[in-house]
Amino acid sequence: MLFFSKPLKLVVVIRVDLKLTKGKTASQAAHAAVSCFKKALDTKESVAMKWFNLGQPKIVLKVDTEDEIMNLRQKAIDSDLVTALIRDAGRTQIASNTVTCLGIGPDYDEKIDAIVKDLKLL
Amino acid sequence: MLFFSKPLKLVVVIRVDLKLTKGKTASQAAHAAVSCFKKALDTKESVAMKWFNLGQPKIVLKVDTEDEIMNLRQKAIDSDLVTALIRDAGRTQIASNTVTCLGIGPDYDEKIDAIVKDLKLL
Repeated sequence: MLFFSKPLKLVVVIRVDLKLTKGKTASQAAHAAVSCFKKALDTKESVAMKWFNLGQPKIVLKVDTEDEIMNLRQKAIDSDLVTALIRDAGRTQIASNTVTCLGIGPDYDEKIDAIVKDLKLL
Repeated sequence: MLFFSKPLKLVVVIRVDLKLTKGKTASQAAHAAVSCFKKALDTKESVAMKWFNLGQPKIVLKVDTEDEIMNLRQKAIDSDLVTALIRDAGRTQIASNTVTCLGIGPDYDEKIDAIVKDLKLL
């Protein structure tokens, strides 16, 4: 009998209404991923390390508003998922303290898909 | 007498010749940042945690070729900096195993700037 490890992922949800540049989008997504990974290491280490050792699969999705980000965050928290809400220091491009993106996970695909299944890839 | 903590950062250098989409660029940069952070936690934990607790400053820079990435990587290794070379699984957009970006750090600004000072922001 074979045992397959269940797939895991980390998701970053980006606000496209802010029209961030490619570089800014990349740095905000990286911030979300590092924050989520650190939180997961601290609170659910075996899940975090399983995800890391599987090659840290991740996808980047998009929403149009801060409201959507906040709704997703609440749903993720209600499902006991790690989240990281990223606000930008705002020295460039956008106003200080603007919510730019949300990290969710890493965790098992089935838990995360239940929250983000209707979102499109960035 | 006051003591100021010296600034630290993590840098991600992206190949723009691949013309990756915003979403792909973001996921590759996030991959580099998480890989670098994990390596730094394992090999220079106090530097990694100082950087994290300073709000994980990071910048995303660009180069035009894989050669430039490989040269930067060698210089960073020679300077005892953490590096993470990211290759894409290539299920989308680009050929499998293509080098997409390089993470350097986190480490003190002065060490990293010596390597990347001539590069432009993405």
